[in-house]
Amino acid sequence: MGGYENGDSPAAAAGDGGVILGVDGGTTNTVCVCLPVAMPPPESPGAVPVLSRAVAGCSNRNSVGESAALETLEQVMAQALTLVNTDRSAVRAVCLAVSGVNHPSDQQRMLDWIRDLFPGHVKFYVENDAVAALASGTMGKLHGCVLIAGTGSIAYGVTEDGKVARAAGAGPVLGDWGSGYGIAAQALTAVVKAYDGRGPHTNLTREILRKLELSSPDELIGWTYADPSWARIAALVPVVVSSAEDGDEVANKILHDSVQELADSVVAVVRRLKLCGEDGMDQFPLVLVGGVLEGNKKWNISGEVVRCISKVFPGVHPIRPEVEPAIGAALLAWNHHRKGLKLENGS
Amino acid sequence: MGGYENGDSPAAAAGDGGVILGVDGGTTNTVCVCLPVAMPPPESPGAVPVLSRAVAGCSNRNSVGESAALETLEQVMAQALTLVNTDRSAVRAVCLAVSGVNHPSDQQRMLDWIRDLFPGHVKFYVENDAVAALASGTMGKLHGCVLIAGTGSIAYGVTEDGKVARAAGAGPVLGDWGSGYGIAAQALTAVVKAYDGRGPHTNLTREILRKLELSSPDELIGWTYADPSWARIAALVPVVVSSAEDGDEVANKILHDSVQELADSVVAVVRRLKLCGEDGMDQFPLVLVGGVLEGNKKWNISGEVVRCISKVFPGVHPIRPEVEPAIGAALLAWNHHRKGLKLENGS
Repeated sequence: MGGYENGDSPAAAAGDGGVILGVDGGTTNTVCVCLPVAMPPPESPGAVPVLSRAVAGCSNRNSVGESAALETLEQVMAQALTLVNTDRSAVRAVCLAVSGVNHPSDQQRMLDWIRDLFPGHVKFYVENDAVAALASGTMGKLHGCVLIAGTGSIAYGVTEDGKVARAAGAGPVLGDWGSGYGIAAQALTAVVKAYDGRGPHTNLTREILRKLELSSPDELIGWTYADPSWARIAALVPVVVSSAEDGDEVANKILHDSVQELADSVVAVVRRLKLCGEDGMDQFPLVLVGGVLEGNKKWNISGEVVRCISKVFPGVHPIRPEVEPAIGAALLAWNHHRKGLKLENGS
Repeated sequence: MGGYENGDSPAAAAGDGGVILGVDGGTTNTVCVCLPVAMPPPESPGAVPVLSRAVAGCSNRNSVGESAALETLEQVMAQALTLVNTDRSAVRAVCLAVSGVNHPSDQQRMLDWIRDLFPGHVKFYVENDAVAALASGTMGKLHGCVLIAGTGSIAYGVTEDGKVARAAGAGPVLGDWGSGYGIAAQALTAVVKAYDGRGPHTNLTREILRKLELSSPDELIGWTYADPSWARIAALVPVVVSSAEDGDEVANKILHDSVQELADSVVAVVRRLKLCGEDGMDQFPLVLVGGVLEGNKKWNISGEVVRCISKVFPGVHPIRPEVEPAIGAALLAWNHHRKGLKLENGS
């Protein structure tokens, strides 16, 4: 790890209290941020004093294999520490929120691995990356539900006493129709069906062919299977949204169906965790994350999703996070660490 | 090419009239059969005098690339000729029915290639592999519709004056929900939805987990994405059928929806080609091929598909082929060749 140019001891470089690491490990990239332990509880997202931020590649072991994923995690943490002229000895707590961590066995394996990297007193929190997204909206508090709808989609909820539940997040083969991939695949299917006489005419045909610079729906088959990347398909979502805004009925039906899928996944999680209280009327935070839910458009997908959910659970309180998920992960570890200190001090 | 052990000239080895080659080129394998030109029109499928049969690997250029696909086709034809102690000089006509031939440009490229392999007088017919399946049910006559539902699904129709139309056949991303893959993916989705609280209870959960030797629906995500092969997913169709037969409502709905998808694809093709005549009442052949349509089961998928179609077009005449598609391709080339001879002879 890097040298200490200013001659300070590593721990001193980040302040006497040491540092906290928050890692958001995704399939596209992995972000690690470093926070000082000695900071006041941040009143607003802008008040989080991030000491450093490092970025690396994919750390989903289902995509790149376990050893490559762990190597990426190790490197990104080392880089974040080097950037503040410190090393592992200054670390007090780490939250690893990594996609592909679905099972208690995944969690245990990762805990076993990370314990060997750090001094014995460091506290570790290993979570699915959805938890970092939730914490980015709740400023590190673990309570509520997060709905992520980007290329994929997942609803993930946590209660204050640590129960978790998820819905969707199983990828396109297993029916994530509310995701960006799902929306775009339904639009491509509608174009093929209109072309071969099984479905109604839709302006999606003209708009998607124009976007992909193809001359006939015939060519969509070749285009679709030329590259199996889900993100490439999901990139067609804006075309579906603009066609729906222009009044295309097929595009509107696809978006309404997807809204219902997304709302259903949140409702299932909230119901299982009783986030809405016993009478179903309690307020609970719903953190909304991902390209599909970024709604400055006329056709407001996230607004419609919240409207659907509020019919079942009127206490839904939508939040758009103002910090990135890695900061959510770091705040989560910081909160836990602070509670631990209070307990130790008897306060 | 191989020697001629019996001392006959190559052409004489297969009879004076020479031979016909029929090739069924698929993604799993490629079959070539050799027929004698000098044979009476076969009265029944059992009466087709197949001289030889050779098998090779994949010849879908979308899967293995163009040069590997062409090499496979060249080898399988050479092997079929060697098996009857003859060579290319004995060939009068060839039908290549190859999956992945979707566009006139695909057809033209393959024609340009095959012309260079054979003497100038040989006639060539290049078709999508669905045409071989159709011809296997109509004994080489190009008229009617074929519905193939195995791992994938496609409806393909041809009129006597050579017009063609297709529906579906665009793979899972583009919505082939009536295919074996489509049926199985819907069943897996139903299991995930039941598990995470978005869908009704279904016995598919118990039956699919037992079949895959998994202990929890959680593990389905890992199982599904561990191997991207569509055939591996489609292999779950018998579990869906048996669950439906045992009265599971979710499994029954999946099969009914898939029947409707398959029927819709045939109806679209028949309507576009007017295979049912101007008044919609003419008889037309519907050739049924593929694992999903092999119906000795109580839940008779192909019977239900035909029943749906007959509500729209009562003249539908279902046929289950008794010969393999490669023989259909060879009979197609043989029919064309015989008509050509008759025209040349003025008869």
